[in-house]
Amino acid sequence: MEFQFSNKVEPLKPSAIREIFKSLTNPNVISFAAGNPSPLSFPTDKLQVLANEIFDNQAAFSLQYGITEGYMPLREQVADRLKSKFNTGKDFDDTIITSGGQQAIDLVAKVLCNEGDTVVCETPSFIGALNAFRSHGCVLKGLDVGNDGINPDELEALLKSDKKVKLIYLIPTFQNPAGITMSLEKRKAVLSIAKKYRVPILEDNPYGELRFSGEDVPTIKSMDDEGIVAYTGSFSKILSAGMRVGFLCGHKELLQKVTVCKQTNDVHTNLFFQMLCSKFIEKYGLDDHIKGICDLYRDNCRTMIEQMEKHFPENVKFTRPDGGLFLWCTTPAGTDMQKLIQNFVAADIAVVPGATFMPSADDVTYSFRMNYSMPTKDQIIRGVETMGKVLKKTL
Amino acid sequence: MEFQFSNKVEPLKPSAIREIFKSLTNPNVISFAAGNPSPLSFPTDKLQVLANEIFDNQAAFSLQYGITEGYMPLREQVADRLKSKFNTGKDFDDTIITSGGQQAIDLVAKVLCNEGDTVVCETPSFIGALNAFRSHGCVLKGLDVGNDGINPDELEALLKSDKKVKLIYLIPTFQNPAGITMSLEKRKAVLSIAKKYRVPILEDNPYGELRFSGEDVPTIKSMDDEGIVAYTGSFSKILSAGMRVGFLCGHKELLQKVTVCKQTNDVHTNLFFQMLCSKFIEKYGLDDHIKGICDLYRDNCRTMIEQMEKHFPENVKFTRPDGGLFLWCTTPAGTDMQKLIQNFVAADIAVVPGATFMPSADDVTYSFRMNYSMPTKDQIIRGVETMGKVLKKTL
Repeated sequence: MEFQFSNKVEPLKPSAIREIFKSLTNPNVISFAAGNPSPLSFPTDKLQVLANEIFDNQAAFSLQYGITEGYMPLREQVADRLKSKFNTGKDFDDTIITSGGQQAIDLVAKVLCNEGDTVVCETPSFIGALNAFRSHGCVLKGLDVGNDGINPDELEALLKSDKKVKLIYLIPTFQNPAGITMSLEKRKAVLSIAKKYRVPILEDNPYGELRFSGEDVPTIKSMDDEGIVAYTGSFSKILSAGMRVGFLCGHKELLQKVTVCKQTNDVHTNLFFQMLCSKFIEKYGLDDHIKGICDLYRDNCRTMIEQMEKHFPENVKFTRPDGGLFLWCTTPAGTDMQKLIQNFVAADIAVVPGATFMPSADDVTYSFRMNYSMPTKDQIIRGVETMGKVLKKTL
Repeated sequence: MEFQFSNKVEPLKPSAIREIFKSLTNPNVISFAAGNPSPLSFPTDKLQVLANEIFDNQAAFSLQYGITEGYMPLREQVADRLKSKFNTGKDFDDTIITSGGQQAIDLVAKVLCNEGDTVVCETPSFIGALNAFRSHGCVLKGLDVGNDGINPDELEALLKSDKKVKLIYLIPTFQNPAGITMSLEKRKAVLSIAKKYRVPILEDNPYGELRFSGEDVPTIKSMDDEGIVAYTGSFSKILSAGMRVGFLCGHKELLQKVTVCKQTNDVHTNLFFQMLCSKFIEKYGLDDHIKGICDLYRDNCRTMIEQMEKHFPENVKFTRPDGGLFLWCTTPAGTDMQKLIQNFVAADIAVVPGATFMPSADDVTYSFRMNYSMPTKDQIIRGVETMGKVLKKTL
């Protein structure tokens, strides 16, 4: 059978990251390529106790169809937490549960963008979001994420010249893959420009709670006084990635459309695990648990940076994250990236090439992403030392 | 904030069924409006034991990111069962796990249809699928489902005249909402026409295993010798609806595109419950469990039909299903359906108006759907008697 695919999906290719994951079957490889949270971050014993409580007391309810917007107690807990802890969410907003933050991104794009419309994003950016936008036929225009977020002047110039921009997609805190955080000034400026040009912002914040140094920066959504910002977060990096539970906070009118599309997409998110999240929050709260994850990632990140300072050549630059899962290494302009990555692979090291995160195939980058949540401290020490040798040999 | 929604989602409204569900909070109402499986069909004790086994032995794996195509043992079990029991799936096919059958429908439409393309469906048809097609900007053209499936001549005439048909969507077995099953002859004819005009078929079979009388009819997919049929099924009506686990069997090339879109949609389906399904199949098999569900639904369906024969006026016709969850009642042409439904509601009876299931707003129907999986036998007896009085008063 020869298939005629829709225009929007015809050019789509399986993501490079997926292919890298599939190749990670060799147990000798030290992988800094993951996007996964540490399995140590999963509160498995507590989840098991709570799962048994659900089976004992609410089994039939938990296994039956639920409502599309999500399990009401969890929606309220998420909305309360966003409000009380991050001043995020106003009266004109609503909060729904999504099947991971990924579904929130996909559905917001579907609801706001026609084929051929433009989505402004950061360069580099999260491949899962970029591919979601591509799958809706959107044109991606990237603005350099820099050391503290995109340049507001560049954003304004872009919105002035391109009238098809329907969405600004940002990961302001512990950006994936760059590991940087947008400054408060830039957040304010970006929001002000979005309001001026009437373009909604999607603020993607899956890592925001994983701060292990420095001070919290207010979310863009916390400064939104009219509902122009949609905000998505996730339990993937806090309780479990495999359960696929995230959330979307945004203007009621926007969320009504998203809900209709979610209804036709997966009806609702796995109800049992929504209840499990809710029970966990009710019984234990999230703060202590998150603190434990932050301690782990701080330790891993510091080890990685120490080792990189010790072993990497001086002309290799890298970001120094205050939280999240990733840092971003940049080699001198002109580096043969393909050769470098191949040399890493030959030395049993996996990283994700920077090109993966580029909005456009024309974007040139001499960078790669490193993850510090999955490897052990010992793997970080040995792996970075090996990488140092490869870098010195290759550059 | 005033939103400018994409053309495809702008006209979408929340589904009427959802609104009906939301109104079902009055405990006096006898509801025949549900689309839910009976909670008695959930093997809760067995699932709890297996869930504890997963927590005890594979907790970290089950809570971590999985691969988009699904948990490999479950994929193999589903493919094996389809093949051995229903001769469904050939070498050119693949089987992936989806977040319910709903996601399979949504993604197949996304992958095959541009906005403005036509999807041929049955009249009436499953509202969740119709709304999924609408959300992709598809034009729906319905063919009367009749007593044993659509008329192949009408299908051929439609495919001959409309060159924008990109998909034929069918629920051949225990159709929702009509409760009828497409004959083998029509299945063969429809497949042959689809092949002649090179239009893929999506065979949606969530109820196929729930046969409580009569003989199995081969799936359309079982007669597919080139991969033109995609086949979706679900564990929703067998193990749990709330867990959102379904599957899609189809040509590898099609499934590759679907997988890329699933990756950007929800990354993967809740892994823990994929593993739970797999363990259930491994330990208990599905056949004995399904037999128990069929016994329950046979009993309920027979009770409902007996009561309808006893209490309904003779000019009210209804289908007599051999399986599934629904039957379809038709009142004489010209019935004031709005008044009838209102009179049912006033008598504390909920059914779903037939208009809900129409592909086009212009389609006229004098029907309503009744569900026999959720109500108790006593509710069926009392409810149908009440309905009889309302029908006699209203018609």
